[in-house]
Parts: sequence; C-alpha cells; structure tokens
Amino acid sequence: MEKPVIVSMGDPVGVGPELLIKALISGELQAAAPALLVAGDVGVLVRAARIFGRTAVLTPGRGLATHQLEIEGNILPVRALSELPATSLSFGQPTPACGRAMLDYIEWSCDQVLAGHGRAMVTGPINKEAIHAAGCDFPGHTELLAHRCRVPRVVMMLGGERLKVCLVTTHMALRQVPRALTTADILETIRITDAAFRRYFVKERAPRLAVLALNPHAGEGGLFGDEEQRLIVPAIEAARREGIEASGPHSADTLFHFAVQGAHDAVVCMYHDQGLIPLKLLHFEDGVNVTLGLPIIRTSVDHGTAYDLAGTGRASCQSLLAALRLAEDMAAKDRDEHKGSNP
Amino acid sequence: MEKPVIVSMGDPVGVGPELLIKALISGELQAAAPALLVAGDVGVLVRAARIFGRTAVLTPGRGLATHQLEIEGNILPVRALSELPATSLSFGQPTPACGRAMLDYIEWSCDQVLAGHGRAMVTGPINKEAIHAAGCDFPGHTELLAHRCRVPRVVMMLGGERLKVCLVTTHMALRQVPRALTTADILETIRITDAAFRRYFVKERAPRLAVLALNPHAGEGGLFGDEEQRLIVPAIEAARREGIEASGPHSADTLFHFAVQGAHDAVVCMYHDQGLIPLKLLHFEDGVNVTLGLPIIRTSVDHGTAYDLAGTGRASCQSLLAALRLAEDMAAKDRDEHKGSNP
Repeated sequence: MEKPVIVSMGDPVGVGPELLIKALISGELQAAAPALLVAGDVGVLVRAARIFGRTAVLTPGRGLATHQLEIEGNILPVRALSELPATSLSFGQPTPACGRAMLDYIEWSCDQVLAGHGRAMVTGPINKEAIHAAGCDFPGHTELLAHRCRVPRVVMMLGGERLKVCLVTTHMALRQVPRALTTADILETIRITDAAFRRYFVKERAPRLAVLALNPHAGEGGLFGDEEQRLIVPAIEAARREGIEASGPHSADTLFHFAVQGAHDAVVCMYHDQGLIPLKLLHFEDGVNVTLGLPIIRTSVDHGTAYDLAGTGRASCQSLLAALRLAEDMAAKDRDEHKGSNP
Repeated sequence: MEKPVIVSMGDPVGVGPELLIKALISGELQAAAPALLVAGDVGVLVRAARIFGRTAVLTPGRGLATHQLEIEGNILPVRALSELPATSLSFGQPTPACGRAMLDYIEWSCDQVLAGHGRAMVTGPINKEAIHAAGCDFPGHTELLAHRCRVPRVVMMLGGERLKVCLVTTHMALRQVPRALTTADILETIRITDAAFRRYFVKERAPRLAVLALNPHAGEGGLFGDEEQRLIVPAIEAARREGIEASGPHSADTLFHFAVQGAHDAVVCMYHDQGLIPLKLLHFEDGVNVTLGLPIIRTSVDHGTAYDLAGTGRASCQSLLAALRLAEDMAAKDRDEHKGSNP
C-alpha cells in the first residue's frame, strides 16, 4: 500500500476542516494526493460536511486510519486524534481543548513521517494564541517542526509555479532587519536552499539561486548602504566556492521580472516583504509555504484560520490543493532519487 | 496650433536619441503624441537615424521648432539647443559638452511648459555624473525640476496601466528608512498624491489611496515594529479629516493583489523597493516615472541611459511611448477640467 501524505487538520474552529471537505466533494483532493490521511477529528469533519449540505458516513479505517469518512462515494481516511464536542464549538472561538488538539495533529503527523510511515506532511492553518495557551512555546509550525525534527536551522520558502522565494529573515520589524542580517545566516540560507532544490526541484543541473540586495539599486555602489559589500557578497562568494550557483546581490526591483521568466530557480530574499510582495502578487490564492531543511517533506497552506470565513464554506481550497500537489511532487522526486542511487 | 508635448532628448551618447528615432520610424511616436517637439541636437538625431540604416533630411522648423527632421515621410520637429560634434562622440562616453547640453534640454523644456508654450514635458534618460560635472548639484531630474518650478516637495510616482505607486522615501539605504519616515512627510505624500490624482487620473470621485505599512503583517499589532501606530496611522487619520480617501496601513504583501484588481487608485509606499518590486514585475518595459506636485506635467522614461545598448538600436522604446501617452492623457484631463470650470 502506498504510504500516505498526512494532513494535519489545523484549527477545528477555523477554515481547515471545511477546506478538506470542499476539496473532497469536488474530487480535487483525491486527484491532488491519491494516498492521503487526515490527522484530525471526525466529529469536526462531519460537521464541516453539513456546511455544504452533505451527510458524511463513517466506517472503520485501515492502517494508520481509524475511520473512513465517505461523502457520496468520495472517501477520506482519517486518524482520529481528538474527540471534541463538535456541535458545541463556535467557529472562530477555539477552546483550550482545540489548542491541545491542533498540537496533537501536528506532532503525530510529524512523528509518523519521521518514522517513515508517511511520504510527507501538509499542515492546515492553526491559531497561534490557541497553541500558546495549550503550552506550546514556539511561534508557529516552522519552529515547532524544526525542534521536533532536531534541526538547528530551517528556511521558510513560499512558492508557486512561477516564483519561489526563500527568506533569510522572517517575522521581525523592518528596522531590525539590517542589524539582524549576518553573512553566516545568509550563507546558511543559501546552502539549505541549494540542497533542497537539488533534492526536490532541479535535478539535472545545479539550481540557479538569485540572492537579492538589501538596499535599492543594490546600494548603487555603496551610495545607499553597505550591507551588500559587507554581508551579502561574502556569503555569495563562500557559497560559490562550495559549488553553489548563487548570483547577486541583485537589485530587488528588477530581479523578479527575470526570475519569473525562468532565469533563476529560487530567489533568496533578505526580508519578509521583499519576497512576499511579488509572491502574493503572482500567487495570491495558490501559494504554498514549504519548510526547507527538515529531514521530512512539509508543505502548508499559505493562509491562516480565516475566522471571518469559517463555517461559511466560502474560503478557497486552492492553496490546500497546491500544498498537496507540491508535497506529492517533492515526494516523487525524492523517491526517484533514491531509486536512481539504488538501481 | 496645438501646443506640443516637449521631449528633452536626454544624454546624447545614451539610448535617448535612438529611441526617439526608432519610435518615429515605426509611426508610434506620432500616434502617442501628435503634437511633439524634441529639445535636443539635430546632428545627434541624424546620427541616430543611421543606426537604423535611414537618412534623415533636415528642413527649417516653425514656431518653437528650429528644424524639421524627416525620415521617409515621418516628421519630427526639433528645437536645436546644442551643436555637438555628433560623429566624433563615442556612445557611452559623455563629454563635458554633453553634460551641459542635457541640462540645457531639460531647463529649456521646463521653462517653455511653465510659460504655457507646451502641454507637458517628457524627459529622456540622463547621466547623473555628466550633469554633476557640468555644475548641476541636484541628484537627478526630479530635484532639478522641483527647484526650477519653485516647489518645496514633490512625489515620485511610478505607474503603468495596472498599478501606480507613490513613494514617501526614495533613494536611501533601507536601514535609514525607519528613522527617515515622519508623519509630516507621509501626510504630505498623501496630500500631493490625492491632489494629482483628482486632477489627472480620477475625476468622478475621490481617489482611493492605499497607504502601506512599513513592517511585515502591518506590524501584527505592534509585535514587529511600532511605526504603523506611531507614524503612519496619524498621517492617515489627518488625511481623512481633510476629506482624502486614504486607507491603511495595509500589509504590503497582500495589498497589491487587491490594488491590481482595482480596489485602489494609488498605493502610497514607505520605501523604494516596496513600490518598485511589484511595479517592475508588472510593468518592466512600459513603466513610467511621473513627478507629482509640480505646476507642470512631467513624465519620464523609467530606465537609464543604457550605455551597454547605446548605438545598437536594440533598446526598447516602450517606456518612452508609455511616458508620452501618459503625458498626453494627463494634459487632456487637465484641459477638460479647465473647460469644465470655464464653460
């Protein structure tokens, strides 16, 4: 039996459960990931089916699945990890039990994939305050998974068909970015990006990584800032000595035009909005968040719990489907590689 | 006789002259601006014609034009303001006389439009070192024109059909941006943008201005930076009290998706790359630089002298044509307004 892609259901009172049901009913979920397992709560999923006027039937599952949820012939295998009082939960109002449940879904999914029982994990949206209230000290998925997988550093990538951006710094005030940047961090981001792209995205040649400048016009020869010469150039030179095809520092305003045309496989960005402005302009609905540098494949929807939409059935499942497709692609490329090395 | 749009030819050894000739031969120049006058050098333009294998014929001009340059029936009126030794100039190597000439083209064009003899001015690309060597202390066109028009503050706008961005700060190191931002400057940028958009771009209602945040996720409620609450919100509130339809501070990564869909007429950006990354992604070849807040209409090509391409005929004239069309549109809207108020 094919190992499944494991999806952590996310916040029980956010849009995560209904996006799974919406994609299941349309048939797109099964098309995106033929072998799939949801780590979540069957009561919450049954309630989500009712948002779309459907009745879900539960039967016993096999393997890792405790249940099979069926809607009009469409089958979703589920591992029940919580038994929340689904009908009494209010959308947008997570209880302490919801916070604990979200963590359980993530931790179980991660552990299964680490143990080789799943091909990849895809994470649904969570509420950060709810997981903090449940005793989790990490800011979000990325840090939690890095800790659980025992890796010191990971890279946040956001991507779609046309563009993939990898961030050196993520969620911090813009005024802290220049002093937070170090050559070591830039170099490590380049290395992790290169290794992940060689493994998952670009197999036949060295990935072409464009490293952006921090300042406008790449500092115009030192006229507007010296971080390019002081911090970024040394990182690029060190990476090139290691055989990595890194170029730059490129002026951020003109680079994306060429990246979208195919001149670069990934763009290494110095700060959050430098990468996310063009990414969300091109991939507002179907962008995927990927954590590079983990020993497992992890992709995620590129949006939050959308409490304002939860329970309405109106939220788009395009990012979820894109995250599933990308996880499948990455798993397939990874498997091909192992076949190649062990013929 | 219709008043002309006056084009300053730009650097005689850059791509400016050949872009004019290229657009003239294709017929697009005349289509973009039926009444046109180039402030420049006839010898340099005749040489530019030869790049395309054409012979230009000169006859006496009328009105402000000293010459008519004709190529195969296509006519370009020219005001000769320099007599450079065209055949001995090397592309990419401006002489001191070239620097002086570029300044003369700009100053004459500006003065003519200020005096009401032209409808608008469109500037070709100049070399900043060459104008500095010729004794001009301003960093570029924008500051030179603001001084000559005696206005204390102008706003740099870059725009195309799909997006128009207006910058609060322009050419400075990113680390200086947070401390350079002031509520007064943000408010003044909003005011100048609003006034210009009411006059030239949005006539039937108040222009909808989206004001961006500085920090990722608009600071996420103060978690990543306080400039939103401290500097930007007060500027937006003051603008709204003046009847300006300003909204924000918006998270920069998601806002452009909605702006491109038509939710906003202009996006007020806190720093150079915040606006230019999405603008150049959408309008790499046909973006136009506009100076808002001058008493005259001034648009410009959105590129430099491109010395690497000068003399080859390969540079694209799309930005020049877009700058001409936008200047014509703005002049037409301005005239309609005056008709409306003086029926």
